[in-house]
Amino acid sequence: MSLIRFLVGRRLANTEAEGKRIGLGPAIPAMGLDALSSAAYGPEATLSVLIAAGAAGVGLTLPISAAIVLLLFILYFSYRQTIAAYPHNGGSYTVASDNLGVYPGLLAATALMIDYTLNVAVGISAGVGALISAIPPLQPYILPLCLAILALITLVNLRGTRESGVAFALPTYLFILTLSAAILLGLYEVVRSGGHPHPVIAPPAIPKATESLSLLLILKAFASGCTAMTGVEAVSNGVSAFREPVVANARRTLATIVFLLALFLLGIAVPVQAYGFVAMDQNAPGYQSVLSQLLMAVSGRGWFYYLTIASILAVLSLSANTSFVDFPRLCRLLARDGFLPRAFAMPGRRLVYSAGVLFLAGAAGLLLIVFDGITDRLIPLFAIGAFLAFTLSQAGMAVHWWRRRAEEGAMAYLRLLINGGGAVATLVALGVILIAKFLEGAWITVAIIPLTLTLLRAIKRYYARLDAAILGAGDRRLQFRSYAPPVALLPIQRWDRLARKALNFALRVSHDVYALHVVALEGPDALREESREEHIARLRRDWQRFVAEPARRRGLKPPELLIEDSPYRSLIAPLLRTVFDLGKKFHGRPVMVVMPEVVEGRWWEMFLHTRRAQYLRRALLRHGGTNIVVATVPWQTAEPEPEELLAEEEPEPAPPEPATAGLAPETRPAAAPSGAKAK
Amino acid sequence: MSLIRFLVGRRLANTEAEGKRIGLGPAIPAMGLDALSSAAYGPEATLSVLIAAGAAGVGLTLPISAAIVLLLFILYFSYRQTIAAYPHNGGSYTVASDNLGVYPGLLAATALMIDYTLNVAVGISAGVGALISAIPPLQPYILPLCLAILALITLVNLRGTRESGVAFALPTYLFILTLSAAILLGLYEVVRSGGHPHPVIAPPAIPKATESLSLLLILKAFASGCTAMTGVEAVSNGVSAFREPVVANARRTLATIVFLLALFLLGIAVPVQAYGFVAMDQNAPGYQSVLSQLLMAVSGRGWFYYLTIASILAVLSLSANTSFVDFPRLCRLLARDGFLPRAFAMPGRRLVYSAGVLFLAGAAGLLLIVFDGITDRLIPLFAIGAFLAFTLSQAGMAVHWWRRRAEEGAMAYLRLLINGGGAVATLVALGVILIAKFLEGAWITVAIIPLTLTLLRAIKRYYARLDAAILGAGDRRLQFRSYAPPVALLPIQRWDRLARKALNFALRVSHDVYALHVVALEGPDALREESREEHIARLRRDWQRFVAEPARRRGLKPPELLIEDSPYRSLIAPLLRTVFDLGKKFHGRPVMVVMPEVVEGRWWEMFLHTRRAQYLRRALLRHGGTNIVVATVPWQTAEPEPEELLAEEEPEPAPPEPATAGLAPETRPAAAPSGAKAK
Repeated sequence: MSLIRFLVGRRLANTEAEGKRIGLGPAIPAMGLDALSSAAYGPEATLSVLIAAGAAGVGLTLPISAAIVLLLFILYFSYRQTIAAYPHNGGSYTVASDNLGVYPGLLAATALMIDYTLNVAVGISAGVGALISAIPPLQPYILPLCLAILALITLVNLRGTRESGVAFALPTYLFILTLSAAILLGLYEVVRSGGHPHPVIAPPAIPKATESLSLLLILKAFASGCTAMTGVEAVSNGVSAFREPVVANARRTLATIVFLLALFLLGIAVPVQAYGFVAMDQNAPGYQSVLSQLLMAVSGRGWFYYLTIASILAVLSLSANTSFVDFPRLCRLLARDGFLPRAFAMPGRRLVYSAGVLFLAGAAGLLLIVFDGITDRLIPLFAIGAFLAFTLSQAGMAVHWWRRRAEEGAMAYLRLLINGGGAVATLVALGVILIAKFLEGAWITVAIIPLTLTLLRAIKRYYARLDAAILGAGDRRLQFRSYAPPVALLPIQRWDRLARKALNFALRVSHDVYALHVVALEGPDALREESREEHIARLRRDWQRFVAEPARRRGLKPPELLIEDSPYRSLIAPLLRTVFDLGKKFHGRPVMVVMPEVVEGRWWEMFLHTRRAQYLRRALLRHGGTNIVVATVPWQTAEPEPEELLAEEEPEPAPPEPATAGLAPETRPAAAPSGAKAK
Repeated sequence: MSLIRFLVGRRLANTEAEGKRIGLGPAIPAMGLDALSSAAYGPEATLSVLIAAGAAGVGLTLPISAAIVLLLFILYFSYRQTIAAYPHNGGSYTVASDNLGVYPGLLAATALMIDYTLNVAVGISAGVGALISAIPPLQPYILPLCLAILALITLVNLRGTRESGVAFALPTYLFILTLSAAILLGLYEVVRSGGHPHPVIAPPAIPKATESLSLLLILKAFASGCTAMTGVEAVSNGVSAFREPVVANARRTLATIVFLLALFLLGIAVPVQAYGFVAMDQNAPGYQSVLSQLLMAVSGRGWFYYLTIASILAVLSLSANTSFVDFPRLCRLLARDGFLPRAFAMPGRRLVYSAGVLFLAGAAGLLLIVFDGITDRLIPLFAIGAFLAFTLSQAGMAVHWWRRRAEEGAMAYLRLLINGGGAVATLVALGVILIAKFLEGAWITVAIIPLTLTLLRAIKRYYARLDAAILGAGDRRLQFRSYAPPVALLPIQRWDRLARKALNFALRVSHDVYALHVVALEGPDALREESREEHIARLRRDWQRFVAEPARRRGLKPPELLIEDSPYRSLIAPLLRTVFDLGKKFHGRPVMVVMPEVVEGRWWEMFLHTRRAQYLRRALLRHGGTNIVVATVPWQTAEPEPEELLAEEEPEPAPPEPATAGLAPETRPAAAPSGAKAK
């Protein structure tokens, strides 16, 4: 317990939920990180396809980047409208569910979940790519490095990222500054040298073309570059976090992010062509990322180089963090609607949806392991989810405007046109990505989407059926057809204080009390040491003397001792049989099995007691029929320590508001429990 | 479930316990395996010490073997007497406990447990040593081979070794025959050639001496060779398994085993010296065990060679099996007496003490892993336990005769002399082993013995204290100070059929029924979707309409709905507080918490439900005080299938006796349960 507390931190109260709203300054790191950091791997992904066509291919970097930036601006105009229309939460799941129906909404959610997972894997692996460019001896440790960063991010997110404002802002702004400076230096050199700049440290030579420049190659390069656009939807997901004026602040943030990203994409593409940078194999020794080559070309390997690489590593790792914020929230919405197990909707001690955090960590870890932590192998799987979600969200917005055309008049048509255009553009891009990347890995994503969708629907169906059974359609009033107390059945091994305590409880509840003793559970060896007959005789003597006599003297119906053989040493079989027999004999009354149980107070005691009581309890509840109730009468081996559980609530020094409900019971007024407690 | 059944086999009835008693023929494989198979590693262990002194050392093989054989005969005469005095069970634990007291008995048990564990590891690793001598390409896979054989033996023993008579007898007799033949061939060649036989395939040259022939070296060689004597106690452990006349049969078996072992030890020593065999490093390529060298020298690498090696491998693996039979039985005795957790005394589905089997497998596996499966590294740890147990057992017998000197007269003194002599001889041998091997690994065994002893005593103390508390010293009669029914407390999340079922049960038991609803368990996000006030109002409406009204109309005290806030989303804290409050208000009456619980019927449902109910139940039982009772009212998501549990008992075709108690309840006469069931 205290280890969890040490790792994760003290429990937070509901009232400590993040309420602070933000403006443009903090919003760029918080919501733009994912999008901006894409600049660190998007251009490289394009180039790594084009390089196959040699110098001719590299020459196409700029036009392809321009096409991607064009698509980016289309998305910008589309999402500006989503922000205004959904000022609370304009996530794709919500927008698509609202306007297109449950299943398109689910499809968008599935697509986003997959993309969030890939974003974590790609962000971390690209960050490690930057790291090994700067420190080549780390090259053999790509996967361990990736997993260590993942573990760290997971832990930070289990603690909750509330105090992380500065931790995010600093590297983000450093990244924006240093990368802008490098790009401007590069552009200046390109212009000054008339298009033939001299690098401070020269990039490797462009390898010979291994493929001719085909349309497919160009489409592939475009598709790979589109990964840079993931994360643009973050602002529309979190509009409610903005300070008033909400919509204006959100739009300004989106505009800044899109503008910076466009600048980065084009600003990197120009020097790439002019200097002739190459995309290298991350897994081969001597790997240098494209940004590393750019930095070396404009400034060599000095302090500026290492500062920029550090900011890239930080920003890429933190971009994984964006997924860690959004994925659990999406899962919570899905769980609330019954599409995911309810654990995903339970806030943990730090008000974070821990189940979602852990699931995302597991899935991303699996991806990193399967693909060895190599960015280039993950890229083909990526972006499909994002573009599918873009398309569904924009199509949803188009429907939204169509439905409001009566109220909004001509403006509705213009907006429909913008969102409809966005939907078409992203759909076309999605098609291109699918065609270009299908065989290289996109098929994995394509296969996983329907599987996930089916799973979500199956879960929903399960809960719906269970709820239908438990909530019921008919009369929900309490019924009093029968009042009779339950029949009590008490399995006993010997007559001791625990059995006595359990029997005493049973007699308070019912006049029909039976005790069941099963002989020879310890097997033939034990029978050799005390014969069955001796054993039974001894037990009957005890029963007469300690139970039946005293009960009779008090004028009570004495509890009956049943003795059963169990040739196969099963306790559950004779117990279940007796439950059924009693159920038949006392028709209509519940059978309450009273289980005496030694309750362990210290962890090591679990080695000293069998799990038999727990096993019996589960088997009885599972197979004992609808009439059964299992009551456990405890015998605690250690003093109770309820303070430990109640202390969880003790507020730390200087809590946001003094919570009177959080005091330990000793210090509360000893009021009798009453319904009046709730105001 | 069905996987376990497939691996381990159907459940066996108590009546199917092994009852067949055996004579000399089957007894030699069953009880002599451990002792006889020692011939495969004992002489090699001696030689591997002597080889350090070169040819001069090898020349001492025969005298040292003769000394070991002398000790063996002393033990033989000692154990002859134990057999007669303890015709039921003459194990060291029993003999030492009976005559020397509890702690000497425990010490003997500890020593034996350690030696049984080592015997498994040594037997398997020596068997694999024989295997790699015959098939050198397997050399790199020593450890995996060892672990695979261990897993196989474990599985066989979890099934029970009842049907294994032939499986044991065949390799044992094959081993005796082939090894005797090889030894006779060797002796014949030695004699025929006048002491200078010509090997068919020559052994490697004896390496140069690296040490001079010191007393310590000789003692070390003797100590290593003593490992051949472990397992001699097996006959006295299992006297009760013999056919009448029990003592005569047991003694004849012991004599045969000791005679054969002595023949092997001396018969191997002579050719070792005459041919000049060497002890090699098992971990180095080209390893040949001493027996492999003997076989190649007398017969080359033909069918006889491979047949003998196969029988050695089989016998060594099966000798580990002896430990698997004896170790769990010893643990069962210790568990019966409270020195080990009770699980060790529970016979599994095959009437085997599975906990002991699994523990032994785990411990031996750990040894194999730590020592890389190399026999030579395990040998120094070995034999200490056996000789300590020998000494304690013989000393116990000496005390036994001393006590009976009045009844038995002069014979008692003779017997005392024999057992006393045995005790002294084994004590001296133990001292030699300790001195010679202490630094090489014996210290590990020496350190583990007191640790284990302390653990056993701590376990005993724990159970004794618990039993003192639960059994109590005072009046054990049922007491009727209070009759009043319990107060019922029902935690509810919403008003549904499950809550209704639980409330109905609570009302059958008590007139004082409270329901507790804790608000805002789902955290701040959920509160944003439905406010606290809306939520409470809705629940109160339901409660009035569905619960309070109908109860009032029936003239019942309406159950009260308590509503508590839980700012830290803890359900257990407000629940425990309410339990304590109710306990104070209704002093002297138990508080019964009625927990509605969805009971999962299919394994995958565990992903769809939180473990909250189980967690609450455990926390309530642990910390709710002595007055608490937790009753679970189940809602089963799947049809009960009690047949599955009852079917465990169904006898297979042709069972030893038709068990009427094993029939499913439907087919039994629907008798009302009654104490008359037990005859």
